[in-house]
Amino acid sequence: SGTGNGAAAGEGEDPALHSPVSGFTTERVLRDSAREKTLFVHGKIDDQEAIVILEKTPIRQDTVDEMLKTSTLKLEMKNDIYSTYQLQAPAHLNEIKTTVICPATEKHVKKYLRQETFLIEESGDDYTAITLPYISSQSFSVQWVYNILEKKAEADRIIFEDPDPNIGFVLLPDFKWDQKQLHDLYLIAIVHRKDRKSLRDLTSDDLPLLKNIQEKGQEAIKKQYGVPPSKLRVYLHYQPSYYHLHVHFTSLEYDAPGSGVERAHLLSDVIQNLQADSQYYSSRTITFPLCADNALLLRFKEAGKL
Amino acid sequence: SGTGNGAAAGEGEDPALHSPVSGFTTERVLRDSAREKTLFVHGKIDDQEAIVILEKTPIRQDTVDEMLKTSTLKLEMKNDIYSTYQLQAPAHLNEIKTTVICPATEKHVKKYLRQETFLIEESGDDYTAITLPYISSQSFSVQWVYNILEKKAEADRIIFEDPDPNIGFVLLPDFKWDQKQLHDLYLIAIVHRKDRKSLRDLTSDDLPLLKNIQEKGQEAIKKQYGVPPSKLRVYLHYQPSYYHLHVHFTSLEYDAPGSGVERAHLLSDVIQNLQADSQYYSSRTITFPLCADNALLLRFKEAGKL
Repeated sequence: SGTGNGAAAGEGEDPALHSPVSGFTTERVLRDSAREKTLFVHGKIDDQEAIVILEKTPIRQDTVDEMLKTSTLKLEMKNDIYSTYQLQAPAHLNEIKTTVICPATEKHVKKYLRQETFLIEESGDDYTAITLPYISSQSFSVQWVYNILEKKAEADRIIFEDPDPNIGFVLLPDFKWDQKQLHDLYLIAIVHRKDRKSLRDLTSDDLPLLKNIQEKGQEAIKKQYGVPPSKLRVYLHYQPSYYHLHVHFTSLEYDAPGSGVERAHLLSDVIQNLQADSQYYSSRTITFPLCADNALLLRFKEAGKL
Repeated sequence: SGTGNGAAAGEGEDPALHSPVSGFTTERVLRDSAREKTLFVHGKIDDQEAIVILEKTPIRQDTVDEMLKTSTLKLEMKNDIYSTYQLQAPAHLNEIKTTVICPATEKHVKKYLRQETFLIEESGDDYTAITLPYISSQSFSVQWVYNILEKKAEADRIIFEDPDPNIGFVLLPDFKWDQKQLHDLYLIAIVHRKDRKSLRDLTSDDLPLLKNIQEKGQEAIKKQYGVPPSKLRVYLHYQPSYYHLHVHFTSLEYDAPGSGVERAHLLSDVIQNLQADSQYYSSRTITFPLCADNALLLRFKEAGKL
């Protein structure tokens, strides 16, 4: 532990095999957050477009004592009872979660580029006239979702499955969660049926599906992680980031990105609203944020709606 | 720079001088944030009460290329064009800001202690049987609100007023906003009428009031700060922090505390819901978070609702 010196295993051959990012060249920073300690970089790996996402990992409670014992500290400031230091920890206690998308498309670049955002108010008619044609024309690939549902990828990550074709779903950790602490617990339930794009498609016919996700999802998380329903925020996004119905489960303690009132819809509210009015989500004006360069935003602008 | 070896001064004697936290023993974690990569720990250093605050540092753009070249990576997951790794960086590129408070008092401990929160599901009947008696029994003082409405306090902070006793309100900056930049813009509209405690009291009779706040509040903010409605998140809290009806206006760019889906209700949704069903907010089950030491939480527990 603590050699911390970058030598990937088995040197001497193709280094890209061992460290796929060692040949990465930065072109530009797409986004960074000093608050969240993340950085999104666009660049190239061996002539291929690539995006590298770096995120420092949460500080683990169970390693604090070891870390404080085995780190070096450099004094920065001392004033009365307060002092501050720069601590250098052994590398294995201080990892950086790294996500590589390669080859990356222009869409990926746009997705991660920090943009000005605007609130859109989409009426039911706007959905039919503007948003639905946009979704259809883009033919967004959800192949990676089908890979999961068909166990062609990430099968070992699934923590629960109800295989029923109508009300079934798979539950697995979101990419954003490293599963090392419960504080930022984040799981996704992906439904087996392929004919529900988003909240807008839901009617009272979907109540058995939604209640099943709520009950069995909460139960599986309680069983697997010991986290009870009173500690879970369960919600859908609108707009979602992909048009295959899915539900987010995040720890209440965790101020999860995308859990703001402008984008998230509590599953318990969705269920109640559909119980009272089957057409609630097809008829209501729904508010959501869109980035400045989002192609859907452009369509709302062209329609004179912004 | 870059010697990276923690020796504050004069080696060879008491090691505590060099690494003041090496003898730290953890008693309990006061707070942690997986999103911000911080951890607040209470413990002891040489029999003295101490608090250690750890915060990972932001990822510096100017060190990314060096970091990717000199780190080791461990593959975690690969699916199509996406792969994730655990990256171990050289220690000097991945420091942890460490703050030590020693000796720490009970006040310091309380300041940093995060209270556990729980989600409550309050039905319309629960409101009548549990929450309303609680609000009445507490007779929370809203004298400070009346002082604002009557210009006995903060009169110079009001940026807009509609004096109408039924649909009027005052609009002023929230205390949390220092007004030095628009990024974290935060204003509050406080209604003149004194007979609306919260969302639960609203019916379709209140639509003129709510629409007035939405329209004139947005207009005043556009005029005063140049921020258009498409950049504003406008919402109510439930539970509110005081039981006199008020509406929050925050910048969409600002991830404002309390703007999460578990506590915030978009004013535009509230208006639509009351248009469709005058009893929407008196009859629905509403979900909200409460801290462990909140007196209302205790009442829900006593009623067997948690």
